[in-house]
Amino acid sequence: MQRTEISTLGEFGLIKHLTEKFKINNPSTLKGVGDDAAVLDYKDKQVLVTTDLLLEGIHFDLVYTPLKHLGYKAAVVNFSDIYAMNGQPKQITVSIGVSKRFSVEDLTQIYDGIELACQHYGVDLVGGDTSASLTGLTISITCIGEGEKDKVVYRNGAKANDLICVSGDLGSAYMGLQLLEREKVVFTANAESQPDFEGKDYILQRQLKPEARRDIVQALAEKGIVPTAMMDISDGLSSELIHICTQSNAGCRIYEDKIPINYQAVVMAEELNMSIVTAALNGGEDYELLFTASIDDYEKIITMEGVGIVGHITKPELGLNLVGREGEEIALKAQGWNSLK
Amino acid sequence: MQRTEISTLGEFGLIKHLTEKFKINNPSTLKGVGDDAAVLDYKDKQVLVTTDLLLEGIHFDLVYTPLKHLGYKAAVVNFSDIYAMNGQPKQITVSIGVSKRFSVEDLTQIYDGIELACQHYGVDLVGGDTSASLTGLTISITCIGEGEKDKVVYRNGAKANDLICVSGDLGSAYMGLQLLEREKVVFTANAESQPDFEGKDYILQRQLKPEARRDIVQALAEKGIVPTAMMDISDGLSSELIHICTQSNAGCRIYEDKIPINYQAVVMAEELNMSIVTAALNGGEDYELLFTASIDDYEKIITMEGVGIVGHITKPELGLNLVGREGEEIALKAQGWNSLK
Repeated sequence: MQRTEISTLGEFGLIKHLTEKFKINNPSTLKGVGDDAAVLDYKDKQVLVTTDLLLEGIHFDLVYTPLKHLGYKAAVVNFSDIYAMNGQPKQITVSIGVSKRFSVEDLTQIYDGIELACQHYGVDLVGGDTSASLTGLTISITCIGEGEKDKVVYRNGAKANDLICVSGDLGSAYMGLQLLEREKVVFTANAESQPDFEGKDYILQRQLKPEARRDIVQALAEKGIVPTAMMDISDGLSSELIHICTQSNAGCRIYEDKIPINYQAVVMAEELNMSIVTAALNGGEDYELLFTASIDDYEKIITMEGVGIVGHITKPELGLNLVGREGEEIALKAQGWNSLK
Repeated sequence: MQRTEISTLGEFGLIKHLTEKFKINNPSTLKGVGDDAAVLDYKDKQVLVTTDLLLEGIHFDLVYTPLKHLGYKAAVVNFSDIYAMNGQPKQITVSIGVSKRFSVEDLTQIYDGIELACQHYGVDLVGGDTSASLTGLTISITCIGEGEKDKVVYRNGAKANDLICVSGDLGSAYMGLQLLEREKVVFTANAESQPDFEGKDYILQRQLKPEARRDIVQALAEKGIVPTAMMDISDGLSSELIHICTQSNAGCRIYEDKIPINYQAVVMAEELNMSIVTAALNGGEDYELLFTASIDDYEKIITMEGVGIVGHITKPELGLNLVGREGEEIALKAQGWNSLK
């Protein structure tokens, strides 16, 4: 029998390959595979569904990830997918597989983190599954949310001349990860060493305890803005913009000097001799919102706190480009984080 | 820090311990943890949500489980939980973690099985997550279903004098598993040996390719019967009856000679010198429906194909008892399959 290595297809190629033969059977299924969340039609409300699988050694390293933070983050990244549809997360199911290495106290810490996230975002735990595992820790979370009819925002609605907007700053979570990895190497070499985290609290928090941008979704609603496309930035700005442009059949132009970057992340990048722009474009795990909006909403958007305009959507034939500080144009590439490579 | 081994709490104790501090925040959350599925209120329909986590080496053994069957079963066991709420499965999300040991062809087989199940039961795949794994295969499926308002059936509605009914037969899936385990041992000792499966197709199919009892849910609707309590039998009749009686604050009396058992399962049990009644009570994985119904529905129920009455609900002070062939009473114990032990 033929054997094709999974790495040859890549994550999105694999998902396409595996799911393209599935047919839609139910009128209540408005949107299936291919966005931040599925959309189900329940008359006056639309039900949003998203799911994430987190595996030890692939998605998290317990050497430097406190279990309570892990639980918090595992829940929040799912809430983020619901906000990215312009919806509100309402319920989650949590399934956990644990090896004998873990105690009840360990699991309690994970659930304490999940509970904190649920309280903070007003979400209910409604089910799950708990199982032994032969190796390591597995966390699978599914989140159900609600969207107002006609206000759910997909990835495919961006139009030429739309503004491209980003919340918060980008690249900080990735620089936090680089810092943790560096201190892990130091610690492995010398267990007496103390990690050097002074003045780096922001990038650490961005990596270990990210928040979902409920405030941005709320601000959009208050200002009467319905984005034309939206998604959360989990794999890096480049990769996500490519998704939006591909699904919207559009091009884009973003400006390097408009990409929002935090000072601590810049300092960390210099310390590690890395490019902070590359981290912002490809680092991932920022869980900020990337959205496009009609140029008619320009006046409203510039008054929004924590939102920056980084460029605009173009016709598809103009391609997907980053305009550098010297005015040079560089084609955007998806170098986002990909566990299957 | 204190360390409590997970095995000391057991699966249900652990779930209770981990989830009891969670509060319900949303009016749309009608029922959270503690039944076959969660129930969400969306006006005229109720949305049902259930999830299952399957881990290699714990829930399945790839030595004797074809990947397509595994995919089929992984989907069907979730549909079964929705039918057990008297609902209809509509959508699933599928998350899979795979190590490098697996090829695209392997994954395609799993998805072929899932697709077959989706087509057969009219369910849509609406999302998921695909990830690398350091070890083995992980499958996490969440199923969303719909229930008619006032017709969703919980575990807690059984009343004294209600009939206890079971669909199909019990213990066959467990005997199929025992057969597969025996042949695995034989094969490990001598790779030239051919498995002896003649006349054992039914119990093998019950283990490797179970079906969910959509037909029973449909028949109940056609006859105008709304069970007072219902669940699917995944852990064995004893364990499930204890759930229903505990949640309904009731006792029960079931009769050994009424427990439906298949001939192939009896033969297999004799070959292996095991008790088929024990297998039926504690074997699990039958995915039959266990339900209680008002005595007023007796005439309707006895005309239902594939449904047997095995006993009746009593007042709680009478306890939970099995009446043996000689009339002796034996207290029911939950010895169901438990991956955490």
